[in-house]
Amino acid sequence: MKLAVIPGDGIGSEVIDSALRVLRRTSRVIDSGISWDVFDWGAERWLTDGVGLPDGAPHLLRANYDAVLLGALGDPRIPDMAHGREILLGLRQGLDLCVNYRPVVLPGGTVHLYRENTQGLYAGVGGAIRRGGIAEVAIDECVYTRETVERFLRYSLSDLQRRGSRRVTLVHKSNAVPNTGSLWQDVFRRELREFPDLAGNEQYVDAFCYHLVRNPTQFDGVVTSNLFGDVVSDIGAALMGGLGLAASASISPDTGFALFEPVHGSAPDIAGLGIANPYAVLMCVVLLLRHCGFDIPADALEQSLSDAVRTEVTTPDLGGIGTTDQFTGEVLRQLDLK
Amino acid sequence: MKLAVIPGDGIGSEVIDSALRVLRRTSRVIDSGISWDVFDWGAERWLTDGVGLPDGAPHLLRANYDAVLLGALGDPRIPDMAHGREILLGLRQGLDLCVNYRPVVLPGGTVHLYRENTQGLYAGVGGAIRRGGIAEVAIDECVYTRETVERFLRYSLSDLQRRGSRRVTLVHKSNAVPNTGSLWQDVFRRELREFPDLAGNEQYVDAFCYHLVRNPTQFDGVVTSNLFGDVVSDIGAALMGGLGLAASASISPDTGFALFEPVHGSAPDIAGLGIANPYAVLMCVVLLLRHCGFDIPADALEQSLSDAVRTEVTTPDLGGIGTTDQFTGEVLRQLDLK
Ligand SMILES: CC(C)[C@H](C(=O)O)[C@@H](O)C(=O)O
Ligand SMILES: CC(C)[C@H](C(=O)O)[C@@H](O)C(=O)O
Repeated sequence: MKLAVIPGDGIGSEVIDSALRVLRRTSRVIDSGISWDVFDWGAERWLTDGVGLPDGAPHLLRANYDAVLLGALGDPRIPDMAHGREILLGLRQGLDLCVNYRPVVLPGGTVHLYRENTQGLYAGVGGAIRRGGIAEVAIDECVYTRETVERFLRYSLSDLQRRGSRRVTLVHKSNAVPNTGSLWQDVFRRELREFPDLAGNEQYVDAFCYHLVRNPTQFDGVVTSNLFGDVVSDIGAALMGGLGLAASASISPDTGFALFEPVHGSAPDIAGLGIANPYAVLMCVVLLLRHCGFDIPADALEQSLSDAVRTEVTTPDLGGIGTTDQFTGEVLRQLDLK
Repeated sequence: MKLAVIPGDGIGSEVIDSALRVLRRTSRVIDSGISWDVFDWGAERWLTDGVGLPDGAPHLLRANYDAVLLGALGDPRIPDMAHGREILLGLRQGLDLCVNYRPVVLPGGTVHLYRENTQGLYAGVGGAIRRGGIAEVAIDECVYTRETVERFLRYSLSDLQRRGSRRVTLVHKSNAVPNTGSLWQDVFRRELREFPDLAGNEQYVDAFCYHLVRNPTQFDGVVTSNLFGDVVSDIGAALMGGLGLAASASISPDTGFALFEPVHGSAPDIAGLGIANPYAVLMCVVLLLRHCGFDIPADALEQSLSDAVRTEVTTPDLGGIGTTDQFTGEVLRQLDLK
């Protein structure tokens, strides 16, 4: 197994160090081993030579690697995050990673959130006229193709079925945003027929967020469009107890190629202090191992993580007194006990 | 003072009955009195003669009334809520009610949410090609004019200043939705200069929702676009303890004309049982009285509401054992004590 590793900015490289320590250990129990190359894409490179995502990067990655592991992007010197947008959206769209899976793990159960990751308001279609003047009109278009909604939903519903889920909720806003909204409803209803074990229902995004905050584990699978998924996954992270816990996988339904990244940002306020929480990136490693078919080490790591997070070496964001290093050490110790 | 009252569907007429009982009492302490006419717009009329919002309704309302009080819209026989969309969006756009104010009242303080209410993804601009086929492309456009964003922000910031707020957060998503996002940022930064007592900051909608769930009262004023405001206000209602508590005012910055409505829907599951919570509609009456300059009865009613909600006659949605009638009675009793 060969990985492309992009530490990125801020705490990105700190949590990636933790992930690589764990991957080195895991490598021993995988016959073919795990190796990786590190890419320096991020704020530094953008500021020195203006390059965010180098030309041809998606092709390079797909031709030579099985998956990507990304730390975090974001730098106070680039307040509009132009480099992060170029890298993240460039990889998502360039590699057709239209399925973004973000599990919301709660004491009462896991909500499996699938966010479409390449179109909608993120399509990059729009513009403005009479910019700056009082007559200015600015437009961002929410664009969906049936073909992408279909591929997204088929993959997500199969994945839910594989996990043994019984219920799936489509989150939309067709009462106010009718064209893409009814496209999603139509594809959802058709695709559901192929999954007789999944009971489907539909909710407006506002009502859904209300119910998610009030009683999240009433939901099982959730499928939604790009921007709604962005908001819902951060609400999910808040309910989990913090962004430090939330992991995500972005997958191409056609090639299976995948990118794994924590939901948290580069946290410039604590970068360099050695106290970044590696939980999310290690949960990304769990998702990565499982995606590549290594279920046994994935399960062992997931169990070790959940044991380690109950000790006092958790990082300060979780109220603990541990450092990134100490928490990683505890995870490795738990792995040894398994 | 002359009101147009639209009970609407489901529990709408039940909570409006409660509001009218309270308005009758309040009428006594207002020299000019308060009178109203009732309009039958809603599902019944839509199903019998196909009319949602009658032609010329916005003009009729503005010419003859000071404000509108609306109960709720929504009926299981009209699953896509076509009538509700026509009435609500027709009134918002037809009366230029671009400022939607939704206070999130929490034990630690109130978050003052202002949602733009007429444009953005609700502009009704968009369409689809090759509908139904695999090559279908569907588009909903998020459209903002600088002129509306300016009028919205000016009104909202003045209103915040009047309330004595010190901080205001712009909620946007300019890193992914750049054209309207940067229009909002530009107008926000310019308008803020006119309000030296208000410290401004900006947050991405995903991060904002995360922080709102984790620690809502860190926020004071919040200004945002239409769809983000829709989602944020439902999260706010969830944090308040239920949709039964959330009130809203939609205001035209140019004419001052306003429409008041609870954030909750028509709740068909409990319609007719007499247990709908009138708290939100009575809070709408508070906002209405204050908007029309009747601060003394507004304060008395607000205080009575907050006293009544601490008794056991609250409705079942709040864990109480009261009916709509009993809770209204308790509010009137509290008013008498003042
Ligand atoms: C950085 C930003 C463009 C991105 C997004 O909105 O998708 C982030 O919020 C995320 O959720 O991965
Ligand atoms: C019914 C619907 C169109 C409406 C909206 O989205 O604005 C509602 O959710 C609201 O918040 O008033």
